[in-house]
Amino acid sequence: MKADFRALKQELRQRIVQGIWPPGTLLPNEVDLAAEFSCARATVNRAMRELAEEGLVERKRKAGTRVRQAPLRQARFSIPLVRQEIEAQGAAYRYALVRREEQDAPDWLRARLGLGLGARVLHLICMHYADGNPYQLEDRWINLEALPDAAGADFAATGPNEWLVEAVPFSDAEISFSALAADPETARYLSCTAGDALFMAERSTWWEDQAITYVRLKFQRGYRMTTRY
Amino acid sequence: MKADFRALKQELRQRIVQGIWPPGTLLPNEVDLAAEFSCARATVNRAMRELAEEGLVERKRKAGTRVRQAPLRQARFSIPLVRQEIEAQGAAYRYALVRREEQDAPDWLRARLGLGLGARVLHLICMHYADGNPYQLEDRWINLEALPDAAGADFAATGPNEWLVEAVPFSDAEISFSALAADPETARYLSCTAGDALFMAERSTWWEDQAITYVRLKFQRGYRMTTRY
Repeated sequence: MKADFRALKQELRQRIVQGIWPPGTLLPNEVDLAAEFSCARATVNRAMRELAEEGLVERKRKAGTRVRQAPLRQARFSIPLVRQEIEAQGAAYRYALVRREEQDAPDWLRARLGLGLGARVLHLICMHYADGNPYQLEDRWINLEALPDAAGADFAATGPNEWLVEAVPFSDAEISFSALAADPETARYLSCTAGDALFMAERSTWWEDQAITYVRLKFQRGYRMTTRY
Repeated sequence: MKADFRALKQELRQRIVQGIWPPGTLLPNEVDLAAEFSCARATVNRAMRELAEEGLVERKRKAGTRVRQAPLRQARFSIPLVRQEIEAQGAAYRYALVRREEQDAPDWLRARLGLGLGARVLHLICMHYADGNPYQLEDRWINLEALPDAAGADFAATGPNEWLVEAVPFSDAEISFSALAADPETARYLSCTAGDALFMAERSTWWEDQAITYVRLKFQRGYRMTTRY
């Protein structure tokens, strides 16, 4: 058969998954595979590259391509805007700005984002509701040196997340997931009990090596972030 | 210049990131880009495909390729074996099997994995230590119909995770992250206090539509799962 790269990839994948080529197996070289499947070497190369991206095989320049001993387990999480996440559940979204303050960046924030002494930041506390129930508490800091326009932006109607996606659509980020016990203030905003276990996502964002923003997103009790891979 | 796809992708990426092509812009077609960069159309196609995978552009068969309005924020987490995770921190890894029991699958597990009435499962409680300190509590269920060999496997020396990677190296999985309050038993194993907020990862695994295993991994207080994107 003359295979396109999808059919070829599917066939190679089957051989690996069904154990015809068990972990550690050195695969035939691209020329031989191209001959077996009557296809171009570029087709084999593309199929191999995608299998490598999926973590099924390892490619080494001189040693050839082997089936991985232990496949990489990569979970990919799409992180939607909270508005989209809530609306996707069929719930009504509501946003509220709780607090807004321009101030000098506290030491811990300067350390985290690499800001200089006396750097000015905008600190925002926002609430996101689903059908009127507290869903997410957003505790956000914006570097005013990088984004002076933020000082004049009206965050009363639209959340800073949506504003930032407009202002800086493409950026690098570091994200962390963890658990924390609700402090009394957080518990008040989320209508839960102090000490409750909450899921937290933190994100620091840079654009061309300049820190843009740091945010702590604290979710209502029982929140689960799920993906398939 | 005659561009290879990496250089081309980098150039296109810059135009998007620097706002030369702002969100919503319809990109030139592949033939025109190939002419501009003196490269093969396949080179343009590959660069475009990778930019689409990164969430920077959207490709539609008839409407062409546009810069995304809001870039997809995809965080990719590599989930290593706990042994690898602990050793990567320079700590000594120790494993202990706490409990092992063959039993009928409880109703909640049958519902989760789609198992029939009376399905037999192996229930394992395991501890993973870093430098002698409790690091992760593994609460695992294995479907003995799918993996009868698990009944005879010795999980006293090696954890079920490593055994499963050998037995079923390639599988589909659903993974969830959440927070939970430590129950008294969990607190005893992890040497923390009942009610402490813990980070939990859950994973259900299938191979060719047959359920293999379900696991709850409860991490020590203060655990953070971090990635960059």
